[in-house]
Amino acid sequence: MEAEFLRWLYGNLKASANVPIGIGDDAAVVRSGHLSVLAADAIVDGVHFQSEVHRFDQIGHKALAVNLSDVAAMGATPTACLLSLIAGTDQTLDQCKNIVDGLLRTASKYRCPLVGGDFVKSPGPLTLAVTVYGEIDDLKNVWTISGARVGDIIFATGSFGGSILRKHLEFEPRLDLVNHIRQQQIQVSAATDVSDGLAGDLLRLTNASSVGAVIDLESIPISDDAITLSKSSDKSSLQHALNDGEDFELLLTLDQTQAEKLIRSNPNLTITRIGQMIEKPGVWYLDNDCLNPVAVESYEH
Amino acid sequence: MEAEFLRWLYGNLKASANVPIGIGDDAAVVRSGHLSVLAADAIVDGVHFQSEVHRFDQIGHKALAVNLSDVAAMGATPTACLLSLIAGTDQTLDQCKNIVDGLLRTASKYRCPLVGGDFVKSPGPLTLAVTVYGEIDDLKNVWTISGARVGDIIFATGSFGGSILRKHLEFEPRLDLVNHIRQQQIQVSAATDVSDGLAGDLLRLTNASSVGAVIDLESIPISDDAITLSKSSDKSSLQHALNDGEDFELLLTLDQTQAEKLIRSNPNLTITRIGQMIEKPGVWYLDNDCLNPVAVESYEH
Repeated sequence: MEAEFLRWLYGNLKASANVPIGIGDDAAVVRSGHLSVLAADAIVDGVHFQSEVHRFDQIGHKALAVNLSDVAAMGATPTACLLSLIAGTDQTLDQCKNIVDGLLRTASKYRCPLVGGDFVKSPGPLTLAVTVYGEIDDLKNVWTISGARVGDIIFATGSFGGSILRKHLEFEPRLDLVNHIRQQQIQVSAATDVSDGLAGDLLRLTNASSVGAVIDLESIPISDDAITLSKSSDKSSLQHALNDGEDFELLLTLDQTQAEKLIRSNPNLTITRIGQMIEKPGVWYLDNDCLNPVAVESYEH
Repeated sequence: MEAEFLRWLYGNLKASANVPIGIGDDAAVVRSGHLSVLAADAIVDGVHFQSEVHRFDQIGHKALAVNLSDVAAMGATPTACLLSLIAGTDQTLDQCKNIVDGLLRTASKYRCPLVGGDFVKSPGPLTLAVTVYGEIDDLKNVWTISGARVGDIIFATGSFGGSILRKHLEFEPRLDLVNHIRQQQIQVSAATDVSDGLAGDLLRLTNASSVGAVIDLESIPISDDAITLSKSSDKSSLQHALNDGEDFELLLTLDQTQAEKLIRSNPNLTITRIGQMIEKPGVWYLDNDCLNPVAVESYEH
């Protein structure tokens, strides 16, 4: 099956001017700038998806999109990707093709051609280990997780919670917003993508930046799926929004001048101001003028 | 365990001037030249190693070294690596530390710092998906698999066969030879690393180059382990050398002028002239002045 799969794969890859040597040699050769960005995340059947329930093309999409989201969270542009496809012994050729079809569709959409990787038959669960390689023009334009300063405004893209119902398989990495911010030359002080829950990832960002955050609970954008989920769970939709995982939205911090510039740049951006950085470590909300800690649950995939 | 493992890992990473942003952010940022080389190979318990028999630090070494071997086969220099460590539910913290210790030792030896990746607990077998990122100065210096020409001399590094007894876990990627050839400005027309067996990978190289190869069977360097293995198998040591997998040696082709330059450059190189490229497709040996096909077995890990 491996030989047949690889023949099919080679026939489905498009040439790219940025990729002088793609799949088929010992390694790929890609044209690059002077700063490269590298992200590697794996997704595993039974942990990050359920192959008995989910569509294989969606699984392929997710494997790439979680990595594109990481590249977006650095303010960078993807250039190429690699896939180690570790197929269970019961995986069919058609399933493997569907996985790669889904990945290639997303790769094409975000101009991130598949340039290499590996195909292994294993006794274990289907596993997709993807690396995305990207670029950024200047170190000072990298959106680190540790650059937030006291007084910075916190923005979130999209809406939160209930991702397990649908979005974790279908989300789009926020690369359009990255492009917009780059084109408008807006400075972002810190960023991360939300994979372990809004509250938890914001806490991670504040800790890395040696600051704290106060958020306005009423401003948190709650997804319809968080509301749906809350009807059959013992949690409120806000609790789902704060602590569900795999939203793959971005958290961004900007100083007040850049924050105003961002808001003025396009009123139709799906971004919401959710709070501000403060000196006191931790993630807080205001209640009767008092800081109360936001409960952070550790998200388990 | 994940948090404890990551704390340990962060404490064991060294800063590198080429890595402005390493592990701990959404993605790594690495200084790069204008041509990047990317290789991604995964190894899986029960397929590429046996965790019940092999040492965990050797498994970590192998996960990186198979990728370094791919980068060497392009004539490139490694810059950084990423590891997706997918641990079985029964994996202990100490085992994970030993894996990463082995990988980091090899990363340090070849100046290829670990800059990112992922840690997943999975119900399946231990899986290590590594990506190596490297550099090459010029496209004309890339050793493709398709550049061999009729008349070129074929060289092999090291010796072949019986790798399963020991070498597949302990081999060193041939990056020293790459450095030597670069420093001496010797031109290599084609190269690949031998992972699926000498005969099979040579056939792959000849097919990619649209030529054939005639090899001198008496010149094939046979490893001691191939001899050991032949005593308890129904194959000769030569058959083991030609078709055993996972030698991770390099096959190189050079035109006659460059071949002489290579031999003169250092008489102590562990390389052997094993044959020559010919027009007739396939891999052959001479017997009584007649071309006979070399039997190519497809190697299964």
